[in-house]
Amino acid sequence: MQSLNTEIDVLVSEVGPRDGLQSIDRIMPLEAKKAWVRAEAAAGVREIEVGSFVPATLLPQLADTAELVAYAKTIEGLTVAVLVPNLRGAQAAIAAGADKLTLPLSVSETHSLRNVRRTHAQMLDEARAIAALIREQPEDRRPSFEGSLSTAFGCTIEGPIPDATLTRLAQGLMDAGCDEVGLSDTSGYANPAQVKRLIKLVRGVVGDEALSGIHLHNTRGLGLANALAALDMGLTTLDSSLGGIGGCPFAPGASGNIVTEDLVFMLDAMGLRTGIDLTALLAVHKLVAESLAGEPLYGFLPDAGIPLGHHGPAATALQPAVV
Amino acid sequence: MQSLNTEIDVLVSEVGPRDGLQSIDRIMPLEAKKAWVRAEAAAGVREIEVGSFVPATLLPQLADTAELVAYAKTIEGLTVAVLVPNLRGAQAAIAAGADKLTLPLSVSETHSLRNVRRTHAQMLDEARAIAALIREQPEDRRPSFEGSLSTAFGCTIEGPIPDATLTRLAQGLMDAGCDEVGLSDTSGYANPAQVKRLIKLVRGVVGDEALSGIHLHNTRGLGLANALAALDMGLTTLDSSLGGIGGCPFAPGASGNIVTEDLVFMLDAMGLRTGIDLTALLAVHKLVAESLAGEPLYGFLPDAGIPLGHHGPAATALQPAVV
Repeated sequence: MQSLNTEIDVLVSEVGPRDGLQSIDRIMPLEAKKAWVRAEAAAGVREIEVGSFVPATLLPQLADTAELVAYAKTIEGLTVAVLVPNLRGAQAAIAAGADKLTLPLSVSETHSLRNVRRTHAQMLDEARAIAALIREQPEDRRPSFEGSLSTAFGCTIEGPIPDATLTRLAQGLMDAGCDEVGLSDTSGYANPAQVKRLIKLVRGVVGDEALSGIHLHNTRGLGLANALAALDMGLTTLDSSLGGIGGCPFAPGASGNIVTEDLVFMLDAMGLRTGIDLTALLAVHKLVAESLAGEPLYGFLPDAGIPLGHHGPAATALQPAVV
Repeated sequence: MQSLNTEIDVLVSEVGPRDGLQSIDRIMPLEAKKAWVRAEAAAGVREIEVGSFVPATLLPQLADTAELVAYAKTIEGLTVAVLVPNLRGAQAAIAAGADKLTLPLSVSETHSLRNVRRTHAQMLDEARAIAALIREQPEDRRPSFEGSLSTAFGCTIEGPIPDATLTRLAQGLMDAGCDEVGLSDTSGYANPAQVKRLIKLVRGVVGDEALSGIHLHNTRGLGLANALAALDMGLTTLDSSLGGIGGCPFAPGASGNIVTEDLVFMLDAMGLRTGIDLTALLAVHKLVAESLAGEPLYGFLPDAGIPLGHHGPAATALQPAVV
């Protein structure tokens, strides 16, 4: 086992077990989720969003999130992230021991009302309550807290979002006590020029340190071009989903996350260190494909293969303390 | 009909009728090809590579290239491009009246030998002979002549190509009498950092003016990210294929060109003028899908649709003089 402290240039944050699995009908068994998380961490992925603390009646696919968090926490060096829609979810996430909580806030208020039945003001209240809850925890058990600006690049109901709304909400989340904000292209509307412009805009309000991550979809095929634009602007955390699970861009409402394998290949080929072993990652693709037999997976690299003579930066693998 | 002289920022050069159709087994009837070229020019596409002057025994799909060139020449403002593998092909192309000839030169000599059974030296001899032939033509009928550096980003047989080989051949093509050279990612190996590096490298040898175009594939999903990198370096001509025809990245040997619809959407969304009407382009997609019923087409935009509130730059359409 190599050192966990090996420096990386880009943090690839795997969101498949949450954003992917919530988008498909079938429920992956807990043991299969554990095997996925274990294998992907062993391939060198350092942050995995393992689930969401929402009522099991809404998302039965993620009903075992607390157990998966507990398991994932046994893997040394892995940041165990979860999505929380509100204070109640945050309470459960903290009880489970998650390292990172992400609260999504739709910058389209119409989308927010339809999605979580809450106004912007109500969501900022939730953010404040969550931040207060986190401050109450013992210092060594405080998770980090990100506010995710979803539909930031446009909304399927409202269309383009005014800049002023985006900056007001970014500032609102920081004022509420978030450690950082993230930009999320929920609708798959983003383009590279817009990615650059909105990163600059939001950083101008919250500061460079408070915006390091972006969550991109590949709905219109621009996912990796948008990722490149984000890298050009100095962002260092990119969300992606193994096999683009749940991400059929041709099905209405599908998430269409950018594909981890293709993203890591791009970064690797560009000489950017992710700590991830591409060959091991492709083995994880096979593992997950088997446990989701019949479910379509996406991505180009898994089929096209690693180019002849490809030399990526050296990878380091995380290992679970308990396998 | 708007002015044909409306300025554009990026020239999208459609290669589907050549690179796409040569990669599928079925033969598209000449009338369907004409309808495709006509519709795509009417959507605002200003350059179309309509075929290749190779023996019909090798590529029966393109046996009607001369007739298609003659038809395409009736469309005002359209640059009618063709691929020529040698002097004999160039003679036929000039006789047919093509506006632009592209000679591919594999910078991997192994690939060149396997593909066209010619060494680098023999290919440069062909280039010289073609340039001489062009100079013999009346001034108003001289086509432009591009040397395309194929496998520039790596070869499936040789792997990475030494920089010195690439620069030597780029210079060799210019010395032989090409008007310009282009970079071609035949193998789908390119990454954005490499795209930037090789553009700089080749321009350092041939000058900025002599390298304006790039031919990218999407074999590993990086096609549009690579296009973005090329744009960042100031390139202004991008090849692409409508519906990614023939471009199944999962079939061995498939070309996997970047998809015109997705590329134009990206450029359009970024505010870069292509002169192309995106809605009209999607109608061409439908037209071609119908004439190739059963053949898989690719691309994300045709299925995901144009985002709500999308405003691209104004488009201008070319119209055929004879319909």
